[in-house]
Amino acid sequence: RYGKMEEENQVGAATGLAYTSAGGDTLSIEVTLYPGKGKLTLTGKLGDVMKESAQAAFSYIRSRAEELKIDREFHEKNDIHIHVPEGATPKDGPSAGITMATALVSALTGRAVKREVGMTGEITLRGRVLPIGGLKEKSLSAHRAGLTTIIMPADNKRDLDDIPESVKEGLTFIPVEHLDEVLEHALVEEKHESN
Amino acid sequence: RYGKMEEENQVGAATGLAYTSAGGDTLSIEVTLYPGKGKLTLTGKLGDVMKESAQAAFSYIRSRAEELKIDREFHEKNDIHIHVPEGATPKDGPSAGITMATALVSALTGRAVKREVGMTGEITLRGRVLPIGGLKEKSLSAHRAGLTTIIMPADNKRDLDDIPESVKEGLTFIPVEHLDEVLEHALVEEKHESN
Amino acid sequence: RYGKMEEENQVGAATGLAYTSAGGDTLSIEVTLYPGKGKLTLTGKLGDVMKESAQAAFSYIRSRAEELKIDREFHEKNDIHIHVPEGATPKDGPSAGITMATALVSALTGRAVKREVGMTGEITLRGRVLPIGGLKEKSLSAHRAGLTTIIMPADNKRDLDDIPESVKEGLTFIPVEHLDEVLEHALVEEKHESN
Amino acid sequence: RYGKMEEENQVGAATGLAYTSAGGDTLSIEVTLYPGKGKLTLTGKLGDVMKESAQAAFSYIRSRAEELKIDREFHEKNDIHIHVPEGATPKDGPSAGITMATALVSALTGRAVKREVGMTGEITLRGRVLPIGGLKEKSLSAHRAGLTTIIMPADNKRDLDDIPESVKEGLTFIPVEHLDEVLEHALVEEKHESN
Amino acid sequence: RYGKMEEENQVGAATGLAYTSAGGDTLSIEVTLYPGKGKLTLTGKLGDVMKESAQAAFSYIRSRAEELKIDREFHEKNDIHIHVPEGATPKDGPSAGITMATALVSALTGRAVKREVGMTGEITLRGRVLPIGGLKEKSLSAHRAGLTTIIMPADNKRDLDDIPESVKEGLTFIPVEHLDEVLEHALVEEKHESN
Amino acid sequence: RYGKMEEENQVGAATGLAYTSAGGDTLSIEVTLYPGKGKLTLTGKLGDVMKESAQAAFSYIRSRAEELKIDREFHEKNDIHIHVPEGATPKDGPSAGITMATALVSALTGRAVKREVGMTGEITLRGRVLPIGGLKEKSLSAHRAGLTTIIMPADNKRDLDDIPESVKEGLTFIPVEHLDEVLEHALVEEKHESN
Ligand SMILES: [Ca+2]
Ligand SMILES: [Ca+2]
Ligand SMILES: [Ca+2]
Ligand SMILES: [Ca+2]
Ligand SMILES: [Ca+2]
Ligand SMILES: [Ca+2]
Ligand SMILES: [Ca+2]
Ligand SMILES: [Ca+2]
Ligand SMILES: [Ca+2]
Ligand SMILES: [Ca+2]
Ligand SMILES: [Ca+2]
Ligand SMILES: [Ca+2]
Repeated sequence: RYGKMEEENQVGAATGLAYTSAGGDTLSIEVTLYPGKGKLTLTGKLGDVMKESAQAAFSYIRSRAEELKIDREFHEKNDIHIHVPEGATPKDGPSAGITMATALVSALTGRAVKREVGMTGEITLRGRVLPIGGLKEKSLSAHRAGLTTIIMPADNKRDLDDIPESVKEGLTFIPVEHLDEVLEHALVEEKHESN
Repeated sequence: RYGKMEEENQVGAATGLAYTSAGGDTLSIEVTLYPGKGKLTLTGKLGDVMKESAQAAFSYIRSRAEELKIDREFHEKNDIHIHVPEGATPKDGPSAGITMATALVSALTGRAVKREVGMTGEITLRGRVLPIGGLKEKSLSAHRAGLTTIIMPADNKRDLDDIPESVKEGLTFIPVEHLDEVLEHALVEEKHESN
Repeated sequence: RYGKMEEENQVGAATGLAYTSAGGDTLSIEVTLYPGKGKLTLTGKLGDVMKESAQAAFSYIRSRAEELKIDREFHEKNDIHIHVPEGATPKDGPSAGITMATALVSALTGRAVKREVGMTGEITLRGRVLPIGGLKEKSLSAHRAGLTTIIMPADNKRDLDDIPESVKEGLTFIPVEHLDEVLEHALVEEKHESN
Repeated sequence: RYGKMEEENQVGAATGLAYTSAGGDTLSIEVTLYPGKGKLTLTGKLGDVMKESAQAAFSYIRSRAEELKIDREFHEKNDIHIHVPEGATPKDGPSAGITMATALVSALTGRAVKREVGMTGEITLRGRVLPIGGLKEKSLSAHRAGLTTIIMPADNKRDLDDIPESVKEGLTFIPVEHLDEVLEHALVEEKHESN
Repeated sequence: RYGKMEEENQVGAATGLAYTSAGGDTLSIEVTLYPGKGKLTLTGKLGDVMKESAQAAFSYIRSRAEELKIDREFHEKNDIHIHVPEGATPKDGPSAGITMATALVSALTGRAVKREVGMTGEITLRGRVLPIGGLKEKSLSAHRAGLTTIIMPADNKRDLDDIPESVKEGLTFIPVEHLDEVLEHALVEEKHESN
Repeated sequence: RYGKMEEENQVGAATGLAYTSAGGDTLSIEVTLYPGKGKLTLTGKLGDVMKESAQAAFSYIRSRAEELKIDREFHEKNDIHIHVPEGATPKDGPSAGITMATALVSALTGRAVKREVGMTGEITLRGRVLPIGGLKEKSLSAHRAGLTTIIMPADNKRDLDDIPESVKEGLTFIPVEHLDEVLEHALVEEKHESN
C-alpha cells in the first residue's frame, strides 16, 4: 500500500512529488513533535540541498508563527523531526520545500492535509514558490498513486503543455506563487477535521 | 550460543533479521537506560540509514509516549544506548526499524520481548511498517536460530510464496501494517513477566 | 517571474549580482528573524568564501549596532537565517558581501530595500567595499532583470569602460568605498515605507 | 619492562590480549577519573569499533551501577579517560571489550585487578561475552608476558584444541558467558588490597 | 585603493606582509569586538597554520591581559572576529602571528596602529618572535604599498643583505625578539590618537 | 636564537627532543593559562597521536592534582593552551608526552623548568614512561643546542651504546620509569626560582 494515496487525511504528513533518473515518484513527508528544546532532526537519506530546503521552510514558519496561528514558542517547547520514508533511497533537491512546509504547519496547527493532494515547489525564506523540474513525470506518478490535485509553482505553467491529455483530465493543477496559497488549498479548514 | 534464540524472554532486547550478500542472519538489538539528559547513543558499526532508522523509531515513541504508557519525561531523565552486537560487523539498512522500536519500548516499559519472535520491517515516523528485502533468506536464518514467529510487513506478503514449505511449517508469519501490531505480538502482557 | 525585479520594495531581501562561467545573473538574498539565541543559519548551497563573507557582514553590523540604530541585543534575542534561493545552484565568492549586509540591516531595522537597486562588492570587517570581478556581465544581467541602479566598488570604476553604451544608458552606477554609502543609496528613508 | 606482567596488582588498569597480522600481543588498558561532568575520553589510536566497544562497556556499567556497588552519580561528578598505551600503534576491534569494562569497574570501585590475569572478549550492552579471533596467538603472547590466567569467551572453547600443550600447561583458561564472571575472576576481593 | 597604505591610523587593523609563489603582498588584518561570550571567529580563507597562529596570539594576550592593560574579563563579555580581506584568496602560514596579535591588542585597548608600519613574524605562546621566510619579497611589496617601517624577527637580520639598497633606503627595519617590542613600535602612545 | 637552549629557566615551557626523517631536533613545548572553563587547546600542527599524548598527560595531572600540589579545581577556573612553535612544521608521535606533562606541571605550580634539560618519552595515563625511537639522533641535536642533561625512558638504556663517546661526554643521561622522576629532575625546587 505504500506509494498509494493515504486512506485518510493526515495530520503531520504531506505528499510530495519527486523526479529522478528513474522517472517520477510520490514521497511522504512526515513530521512529528515531542517535548524538547527546539532541535530539528532531518532523516531519510536526505542530501544537503533538501536539508537546507527544510531549514528554509522551518525558518519561514517560525518567522510567521503569529499569522499561521502557531504558538510563537513552539520551537522552545518541542523538538521537531522531519522524516522521509523509504530510508534507504537517497533524496535531494529543493522541490520538496513546500511539501515540508505544509507538513510542518499541519503538525504545528493540528489541521489535516487533504489526502488527494500532491505538491512540488521550492520554497524561499519569504514563502515564495520557485519553479522545479520534471513536472510531467511527477504528474504521471501522482496520477498512478491516485491523487487528484497537484499544487505546483506558477512559473511552471508552461510545462503543462507537455503532459498527456489523459493524465491532465484526472488531475486538477493549482499554480501558486506563495506558501499562503499552498496552505489554503492543501489543508482542511477545521482543526483535526477529516473527510 | 550467540546467534541462537535467547534462553529467556528479555527486557530491552529484541531479535531482528538481517540480509546481506552472505545470506540471512539474526541480529540482537540491545537497549539500555541510565540516568542522564536524553542523549541517544548508537553503536555496533551501524551505517547512516540504520542510524536514521533508530532516530525515527525513537521519535515515534517519544511522540506517542502517553499511549505507550511511558513516562513522558523519560528522555529528560535518562540517556539511552542502542547497541547491535558483533561490533566488528558492518550493519546498515532500514529493515531493523521495528526491532529497534520494540527493544526501546521494552526497555522503557519493562515489558519483556517474547524470545521466540524475530522481526523485520522499516518504521516510519508515524509508526507505519514498510516493506523490506530478503524475506526468504531472513526466514531461513530465523528457522536455523530456532525462532518460531516472524513479524513482517504486510506489503511483503507476496514474498511468502518463495519460502520453502519445510521452513514455513516451522514458522508463524504475522504480517503487520503498524508498530502497534508489532508490539501487540512481540511483547508479553505483563511487566517483567517471563514464560 | 523569479529572476525579475521585485514587484515591491522588500524588507529583509536585497538583490545581488553574480558572475559565473555561464555569465551574469541576479541573486536574491533573503534574511529572516525569529525569537532565538543568536544563531546564524546560512543556506542556499553556499561555498565557504560566501559563508565567511556573511559572517564578516554580520560581525560588522553587530559591532556597529548603535550607529545603525539596531537594538544592541538583537543577536541575543533572535536567530537569524540568511538564504539565497535557487537552492540547487552552488554559489560562492565574496562579492555578495554588501548585499548580505544590506539585507541584514533591512531586516534588523525594518527599512525596505529599493526594488530597482542591484549591488556587488566584497565587504570587510570595517565595512570597506573591495573590488569584484565580472562587472560587465553583472551589469548585463541587471539590465535584463529590469534593475536601474547598480551599487559597485569604487575600485572597479575602470571596468565601466567595458560596458556597452546601450546598457550604461539604462543604468545608474554608484561607486562606493564603504557600507555606509551602500545603505544610504539602497534603503528607503523611513521604516516600512514602500513606493 | 613494558609488555611484561605488572609488578603489582593495579587499580584502574587491566591486561588485554590483542591479535594482529604480526601475531599476538598484550595490551594495557588504563582508566583514570578526575572531577568533571561525565565526559568519556578515549585515546591510544583506537579505531571506531574499539571506541564503540568502550562505549558499550561504559553504558553497561552505568546501567548496572547499583549491583556493581558504584556510586550511581559517578558519571555526573567525574570525567573518565580510557587510554591504551603505545600511542603510535593503531588498535581496533571489539575483543578488548571485557578488558575495558574490567579496568572501568576497578577504577570506579577501587578494587585492584589481579596482575597475573589477561583477558579477551567482546562485551554486549547486557554484559554478555561474545567470541573473538586469534585465541591461539593471544595465548602465546600472554605466556611470553608471564601471565598465568586467561579469561576467554565460552563460545571460544573449541579453539583451545589448537593451543600447544607447552603453553596450555602454564596457563589457566577461564571460559565465561557474562561480565559478572569476568569481574569475579579478575578483581581482588577487597578494596585496594594488593598481594 | 585597497593594497595601499591606510589613509589614517586604524584601531583594530594592522598591516602584515605575505609571501606567496607570486611574490610579496601586503595584508590587512581586521579585528572587531561585539557583546558576546568569548567566541573567536576567524575568516578570510585561512589555512590551519594561520588559524592556530591566531589562537596562539589570542592566548598570549589573554594570559598577559593585566600587563597589556586589557580588562581581564574582555573575553567573557565579547565575541572577537579576526578577518583577513580579499576573502577569495587562500592564506596560510604562521608569519602573520605578530600582526594578528597587534590588531587584537589595538582593538582591545583602543590604541591605534601606526599606518606606515608593516610587520611579519611568527608568535609563540610566550610572545616570542620567530623567523619567517621571504623577507626580501615582503619588503618590496611593503615599499610598493607606501609603508616606511617594517617590524621583523631579529633572527631574520641576515636576510637584510639580500634586499636592494633602493628599497632599504625607503624603509626602516626594526628587528624584534618579543611581542612587547612589536607593540611598542606599532601602536601610537595614547588611546584613539590619530596623526 | 630559536633552537638554542633558553637563556633562563622557564615557567610553562620545557624542551623536548624530536626525531624525523631529517634527523633529530629540539622542540619547545609552551603552556599558558588564563581564566576560563577548563578548555584544552592544542596547536602547532600536531598530529592525532601527539594530541592524544597531550590529553593523556593532562588527565594524569588532573587525577594526581593533590600529590602534585595543584589546586584541584584549576581545570574549572582556567583554560589551558599547549603550543609547539614553528607552527608550519608538522609534528607527531607520542614521544613528547613527558615534555608536555612537565610543561603543564610547571605552568600549574609556578615551578620553573631547568633550562639545560631536554627530555623524551611516551607517557601513560598512570604516569609511566614508555620507550621511544631515535635516541641517538635526539642526543646529537640536544648536544648541538647546548643542553647538558637528557631525561629518557629506562627501557631505552640499551640505545645508549649507539651514541658517540664525544656526545655522551657532554651529556648526563637520566633513565626514568615514571613521571615523578621526570619532574624531580626537570623542575627547580622552589616556586619561581631562577638560577
Ligand atoms: Ca517509492
Ligand atoms: Ca503576484
Ligand atoms: Ca551472526
Ligand atoms: Ca489498514
Ligand atoms: Ca537565476
Ligand atoms: Ca576616501
Ligand atoms: Ca606491545
Ligand atoms: Ca548460560
Ligand atoms: Ca592583495
Ligand atoms: Ca634577548
Ligand atoms: Ca627546529
Ligand atoms: Ca620499578
